[in-house]
Amino acid sequence: MRHAWVAGVDVGGTHIKIGLVNGRGRVVREQVLSSDAYGLPQRFVEAVSRVIERLTESVGLSPAKLDGVGVGIPGPVDVQRGIVHSCVNLPQWRHVPLRRILTRRLSCAVHVDNDANMVTLGIWRFGAGKGAEHLVCVTIGTGVGGGLMFGKQLYRGASGSAGEIGHMVVNPRGRLCACGVQGCLEAMVGTAAILSKARYAIRKGSEPLRTLANRAQVRLTPELISQAARAGDRQAQLIWEGVGFWLGVGLANVANVLNPDRIVIGGGLANAWSLFAPTMKRTLRKQAMRVPAQALQVVRDSLGHRAGILGAWELVWQEKAHSHH
Amino acid sequence: MRHAWVAGVDVGGTHIKIGLVNGRGRVVREQVLSSDAYGLPQRFVEAVSRVIERLTESVGLSPAKLDGVGVGIPGPVDVQRGIVHSCVNLPQWRHVPLRRILTRRLSCAVHVDNDANMVTLGIWRFGAGKGAEHLVCVTIGTGVGGGLMFGKQLYRGASGSAGEIGHMVVNPRGRLCACGVQGCLEAMVGTAAILSKARYAIRKGSEPLRTLANRAQVRLTPELISQAARAGDRQAQLIWEGVGFWLGVGLANVANVLNPDRIVIGGGLANAWSLFAPTMKRTLRKQAMRVPAQALQVVRDSLGHRAGILGAWELVWQEKAHSHH
Repeated sequence: MRHAWVAGVDVGGTHIKIGLVNGRGRVVREQVLSSDAYGLPQRFVEAVSRVIERLTESVGLSPAKLDGVGVGIPGPVDVQRGIVHSCVNLPQWRHVPLRRILTRRLSCAVHVDNDANMVTLGIWRFGAGKGAEHLVCVTIGTGVGGGLMFGKQLYRGASGSAGEIGHMVVNPRGRLCACGVQGCLEAMVGTAAILSKARYAIRKGSEPLRTLANRAQVRLTPELISQAARAGDRQAQLIWEGVGFWLGVGLANVANVLNPDRIVIGGGLANAWSLFAPTMKRTLRKQAMRVPAQALQVVRDSLGHRAGILGAWELVWQEKAHSHH
Repeated sequence: MRHAWVAGVDVGGTHIKIGLVNGRGRVVREQVLSSDAYGLPQRFVEAVSRVIERLTESVGLSPAKLDGVGVGIPGPVDVQRGIVHSCVNLPQWRHVPLRRILTRRLSCAVHVDNDANMVTLGIWRFGAGKGAEHLVCVTIGTGVGGGLMFGKQLYRGASGSAGEIGHMVVNPRGRLCACGVQGCLEAMVGTAAILSKARYAIRKGSEPLRTLANRAQVRLTPELISQAARAGDRQAQLIWEGVGFWLGVGLANVANVLNPDRIVIGGGLANAWSLFAPTMKRTLRKQAMRVPAQALQVVRDSLGHRAGILGAWELVWQEKAHSHH
């Protein structure tokens, strides 16, 4: 069985990333759409399909010649039936039979899954998760997501929502999470927590942070807080150490409950790795039990924004291999 | 392939339970040994072997005619090699090749596993976990243990320690756990937490609790606190509601991360089910996300002290079925 040409679609917080992946798992073409414009499922399908047509044509193919299209959605998906129940960034979406619509439009196999599962498959096949037997991927950014692979198989749980590590409560008296619960891991280490702490530090007089924010003439971002921390701002450093602490608490829980051999940390905030990783690892060592701690490696994702697109390739490949049995 | 006659050995906190299970999964003989006396592995093996000989002889068999012996150990076990790395209640045990020693002594197949895994197998095969696809078992008592089954298979993790739900931190500013970490689920809902809260309530003047404790002329026990709660003592009721709250927080984390279709609560403290379950379920509903909450049933174990022995039967049966492939 030859390896597959696949189009991967990663529906993210602010962009829809679309990539064409060749038979050897290389991303050969990429395009990014702003997700704002595609609120209605039909418009989304039309826009994504046109990009896939353009990308395939640019390499002398047509969508019908693809081995499949994989779509990663930030929300609950019925993987078996290819139905998107809801989507964080596209509130008009309710129980959209995305697989059926896209298959009809593109005349090729379509697989729809949760975006975190797609990223996890990509990281396991091509990235820092390669070779792991029991893998946990955690993506930290505006949201904190997660994906699980047990025995080299994606684990989706009873209704496809497994891996919501961001909504594990680590601090019952902590910040209120977007989900309405206090002290979820997402509420402690996500972008909102970081920005809120930084604003507080600026009010309290953290000069380097204030200077950076003014110089950039833009809103405060995690990137600016990283710059300030690297420039020696103690308040900014403490913010990232806080991220490291709460991530360490969360990962120790994951280690004790799941005893994985590897945890991969990805997502936009992973760019601040050197600022939070030492505290994270120290906390993890302190809080995890000896046996699971010894079995565990915690490493940083290397694929970045391509993880989801490469995961789409792996998903199509697995489904194809499976249907050949 | 006919079903197996099995001897199950469940090494618990204060007792070693040994049972003989017939081919239909019925416990036909049982005996309990005090675990205090069996500190050295050789003495343990000798005592357990004699009981197994006596039990098998009483039904006209010999140990060599058994299809296997399953042993559940409260500590980390190398399941593949049958080695007990350590055992909570038997501190002299260090890397004991229990399978080899017992096999030689009894001339039959021996399987050694973690006690929580054994209990989980029993509950899944014969108890309240029957039919579950993705099952989480939580036992609450002096310790809080857990076992995981994904896709109807026991999940042991990278080094056999998966399922340590009792050492998931749910309250970083909470009580110190026996493991040295603050606010583990075990530290919040285990026997020590309950007794400590009860002693505090008694000092603060909870009359029914004091009366019960005096009348019994014995140490305070969770059972006495249940009696007081059932007799209307508000302080005692609050203690159990606290157990329900923290258990609800922990189970919501488990639901969000693992999306199981069933959680079974067992262990000695499960006898107070009606006192903590309403708060537990309310907290779980409030803290868990909608999709995993809808997929989940939380029920009480029905097998009690036989769960481990019946799990030994299932373990031997699975290993036998596996070796026939």
